[in-house]
Amino acid sequence: MKELCETLSFRFGEEIPVPPEKLQDTKTLAGMAGRRSFRRFTDQPVSLELLKLLAGVALSAPTKSDLQQRDIIVIKDRDVRNKLNALLTGQDWIADAPEMLVFCGNNRRQRQIHGWRNRPFANDHLDAFFNAGVDAGIALQAFVTAAESVGLGCSPISAIRNSSLEVSAILGLPGHVFAVAGLGLGWPAHDKPVALRLPLSATVHLDQFKETDIEEQVRSYDDRRAGLQPMRTQRDETAFGTADPYTWSEDKARQYARPERADFGEFVKMIGFRLI
Amino acid sequence: MKELCETLSFRFGEEIPVPPEKLQDTKTLAGMAGRRSFRRFTDQPVSLELLKLLAGVALSAPTKSDLQQRDIIVIKDRDVRNKLNALLTGQDWIADAPEMLVFCGNNRRQRQIHGWRNRPFANDHLDAFFNAGVDAGIALQAFVTAAESVGLGCSPISAIRNSSLEVSAILGLPGHVFAVAGLGLGWPAHDKPVALRLPLSATVHLDQFKETDIEEQVRSYDDRRAGLQPMRTQRDETAFGTADPYTWSEDKARQYARPERADFGEFVKMIGFRLI
Repeated sequence: MKELCETLSFRFGEEIPVPPEKLQDTKTLAGMAGRRSFRRFTDQPVSLELLKLLAGVALSAPTKSDLQQRDIIVIKDRDVRNKLNALLTGQDWIADAPEMLVFCGNNRRQRQIHGWRNRPFANDHLDAFFNAGVDAGIALQAFVTAAESVGLGCSPISAIRNSSLEVSAILGLPGHVFAVAGLGLGWPAHDKPVALRLPLSATVHLDQFKETDIEEQVRSYDDRRAGLQPMRTQRDETAFGTADPYTWSEDKARQYARPERADFGEFVKMIGFRLI
Repeated sequence: MKELCETLSFRFGEEIPVPPEKLQDTKTLAGMAGRRSFRRFTDQPVSLELLKLLAGVALSAPTKSDLQQRDIIVIKDRDVRNKLNALLTGQDWIADAPEMLVFCGNNRRQRQIHGWRNRPFANDHLDAFFNAGVDAGIALQAFVTAAESVGLGCSPISAIRNSSLEVSAILGLPGHVFAVAGLGLGWPAHDKPVALRLPLSATVHLDQFKETDIEEQVRSYDDRRAGLQPMRTQRDETAFGTADPYTWSEDKARQYARPERADFGEFVKMIGFRLI
């Protein structure tokens, strides 16, 4: 428990006290606290049986109102995989990841159920889309924890939504079904330290949302991170020049100074959702 | 591992084979495979230290592009909690849960960063809202796994979004910050079996989305579930009468035959998002 608190203290840059409760087993906690995204893997594939087992564990997670509005697509076919890789050229590691899965929101089944049960579907508004998306995020995270607990490494791929239309065509996604994130997966070929995160004093609030000193907290996080885990490349130097130190917030401000999937809303409407 | 596969086989109603890989430690998997939502608890509270530790573990989960667009609000103040309880009257168990947390999407910090770094925010469209919502779902699920691994029981509360405006006022949420789900939490006062889920043959697809026999799969799941875990009450009997058997799909079709938070989109726009 002490070691676990130390890992978290390093990650968040502030003391995480040992709680007073006597906890019987903290192995799962320790694994989750020490997690890292991996992007380099051995050549060894992961069996379809293990991927299905992990999918079963992931789909044991909670789902909004027991509606089960999420599906997982396991990519094993080389041709399908190559087509997806061809869309995801921005990140070199993706093509080399032994396995890929795609986590989808699925509001289609619910609508089909209304047809079969002859009941009107009275929820054709933003919530229908949002619930399915969040359910897919929940399944993604459960899969990540499950996979990492047996020694696999992985990294989510939200860039899959940069090409929603093409991804839907490749995977045969019908209306009201949409990819939320991909996941590259394999047995890690290296080790790495845990990534630093904003302090819990900025992101965990007691009773009320507070942001009195948020600018100072981000600046201090920027400094700590630039010192301990400096970023290796600067984004878009042509437009934004070179910053020293090049901080997390500078990187994120540069990233979202460029439009990213501005057509996602159009796609979501095209597959049948109403964003009202 | 054999027991874990048996738990999953029971949950999904189909054989889950033991994978060929030699897995060193399957304790986390077993815990996740056997998870249940709990809604009855002992009176014992959970220390703020433990809640913060679990929050730290949860916020160690992946976040879209390292943007960290999710926050957790821990409710300990009795007055704040009573106000939230008063909004969540539809589910009796909520007021009795010893602890409550609220998981929020936070796209505000990113926009603030653009101000501090003097970079334009070029992503004022659906994706900004969606990414923060999914990030909150990811944190929620990581918290659930972490909490359950130390013996706590919990159940997410998406109904908190039925009163988004009031919840935002109570918690002091500023623009571009929104509650995605609450979580009721405590030490379980009872045991219960794992909930049955749609078979993986319906929800886990290989290479391509397939739904050839989805109606038959749902019907067969309905039958199995009505036999093994029948629902105790029928929703909205006045309008829909009594069904025998009363199945999962009948329950879900009745639920969404009534509008649920049809004003969520309006709220999301009111707090500053553009749903385009």
